[in-house]
Amino acid sequence: MRAAIYHGPEDIRIEDVPRPEIESPTDAIVRVTHTAICGSDLWFYRGDSDRDTGSAVGHEPMGIVESVGDDVRSVAPGDRVFAPFKMSCGFCEFCRKGLHTSCVNGDSWGGDNGGAQGEYVRARHADGTLVRIPDRHADDEDTLRAVLPLTDVMGTGHHAAVSAGVGPGSSCVVVGDGAVGLCGVLAARRLGAERIVAVGHHRDRLDLAAEFGATDTVCARGETAIERARELTDGGPNHVLECVGAASAMNAAIEICRDGGTVGYVGVPHGVEREGLDVFGLFGGNVALRGGIAPVRAYADELLADVLGGTLDPSPVLTDTVGLGGVPEGYRAMSDREAIKVLVTPHDG
Amino acid sequence: MRAAIYHGPEDIRIEDVPRPEIESPTDAIVRVTHTAICGSDLWFYRGDSDRDTGSAVGHEPMGIVESVGDDVRSVAPGDRVFAPFKMSCGFCEFCRKGLHTSCVNGDSWGGDNGGAQGEYVRARHADGTLVRIPDRHADDEDTLRAVLPLTDVMGTGHHAAVSAGVGPGSSCVVVGDGAVGLCGVLAARRLGAERIVAVGHHRDRLDLAAEFGATDTVCARGETAIERARELTDGGPNHVLECVGAASAMNAAIEICRDGGTVGYVGVPHGVEREGLDVFGLFGGNVALRGGIAPVRAYADELLADVLGGTLDPSPVLTDTVGLGGVPEGYRAMSDREAIKVLVTPHDG
Repeated sequence: MRAAIYHGPEDIRIEDVPRPEIESPTDAIVRVTHTAICGSDLWFYRGDSDRDTGSAVGHEPMGIVESVGDDVRSVAPGDRVFAPFKMSCGFCEFCRKGLHTSCVNGDSWGGDNGGAQGEYVRARHADGTLVRIPDRHADDEDTLRAVLPLTDVMGTGHHAAVSAGVGPGSSCVVVGDGAVGLCGVLAARRLGAERIVAVGHHRDRLDLAAEFGATDTVCARGETAIERARELTDGGPNHVLECVGAASAMNAAIEICRDGGTVGYVGVPHGVEREGLDVFGLFGGNVALRGGIAPVRAYADELLADVLGGTLDPSPVLTDTVGLGGVPEGYRAMSDREAIKVLVTPHDG
Repeated sequence: MRAAIYHGPEDIRIEDVPRPEIESPTDAIVRVTHTAICGSDLWFYRGDSDRDTGSAVGHEPMGIVESVGDDVRSVAPGDRVFAPFKMSCGFCEFCRKGLHTSCVNGDSWGGDNGGAQGEYVRARHADGTLVRIPDRHADDEDTLRAVLPLTDVMGTGHHAAVSAGVGPGSSCVVVGDGAVGLCGVLAARRLGAERIVAVGHHRDRLDLAAEFGATDTVCARGETAIERARELTDGGPNHVLECVGAASAMNAAIEICRDGGTVGYVGVPHGVEREGLDVFGLFGGNVALRGGIAPVRAYADELLADVLGGTLDPSPVLTDTVGLGGVPEGYRAMSDREAIKVLVTPHDG
């Protein structure tokens, strides 16, 4: 089969690789019909994080179940399914408590399982990992585009909002206008926030944030952005969603947050080992830091229900669509901020 | 009046200084009958943090109200009172929500207000700052010794437990066997924790932790301590109280904590700017970091009720007693770990 393979910074190639097969009775093989390029993929694409050369990439699969192992109960060949960026068993202590990213039987896409930016993947623990899309919605392209972000960015934005403690009537600030930040705005609105200030520095993305429910947008950087966000929230909100994943954004989020409030963060905090985290800012103001890698599987069912019900639609973050051959160009377009997020249809082109 | 004055590392002197006076109608002057030396005082004593030479020290006052300004309503001359390590107005947004350390009208001991390791202090915002001890208990020396830790370490240990989310049935680990850690054990037991593992490296202090309610003690350092604490809690507890205030202890607390759990921290995290905070440990396991400078005024009333009711007694942390002249020796004894915490009676000796 064909799949996108990492060969070094700015070097993604489409190559023929072995097609994954059922190895365990709990496995399923999924023919990937839709997937995406993730903002987190840009870290290795830009050489900001290490990755093995020759490794398959992509972690946001949606597709049709091709075959299942003997013990798989919840899906069958022909079903339309999607899966989070991490696989999970569904029955361990951590899956039971909604922390699927800490699953003791967990696994990742890539390697022998195939990367999601490829034609087929093997889902380990298919009953725990895969989420079935009901047949009546399974072939509606608009619906599928709206469901796809549930594999990662929509669940991640939701985790930021939940971690920050957003609820009915909340006033909150969302730091970051990428796909996760925009989904954070959607999540905050969905959770009942009354005031949602989106902070970024791309006017077009902030316009989308406003469409998604941001009541105010701040298009600025550094101290200017921090001051403006605080002004708009009477000195700082009790809830800040950090949706960038960089030390500077984390420290801005801490500075924006009202004393006694909570920063919900969901991005790998790149650069924090060099720039440091503003622990004294947290300490002095009793600002809590909650979040981490998002257990998007925990949120999949409730978010899917809203997407299918027509009350949640994160698909506007998918600004471009490419076939598998267009994946390298898709990375470039996202890295150059021309695209917010690129949808990939691996069996096309 | 006489007061303890900082002159540089390991150089505390008792000197004659001006006695503070009423300056505002909300002030009160308190004749300090009992106070203490704090573990946090050791940071400047050892030269690990900066402090102005010539500054008055001490921030845990208890005493008799000497005089009050015209607007003071809650206390009167002759009342026995104590006060937290920070002054607070009692009526601003942050005081109303129990975050008195963020009081917009707050002030600190020292300077013109006098340090608590001195004969008199001026309490700003006396109605918000001072806590009155009912007359029937006001002259009982054993009661006063049990109340004194409410000025700082007992409220701080309680804040660690509250921040870590300890509740009925909790399993928790307390990192640190100093006065705050020991009070953290008392607080965890008071909040209903069933399993309390105290981690330190002083056998005598851990014995006191066991008297205070620790179900297990770990007398070890570094990875050995971390592994043992995790073993005793089935792989790590959901609640960790960080009661040291150092980067190494913070990172140990993060490593001990179960995925999805919470580290409650209350010590100024010294060394974190050099050693770094294990943000990736927090991120990967969705471990929350809550706490900060303890709003002990918020907890004073409920803890006082328990002390007066005989169900809470942190006084065993006060292992030594000195008059004002003994303060320099008290600092030395605490710095050399000969004393856990030193009670000071400023009008003696």
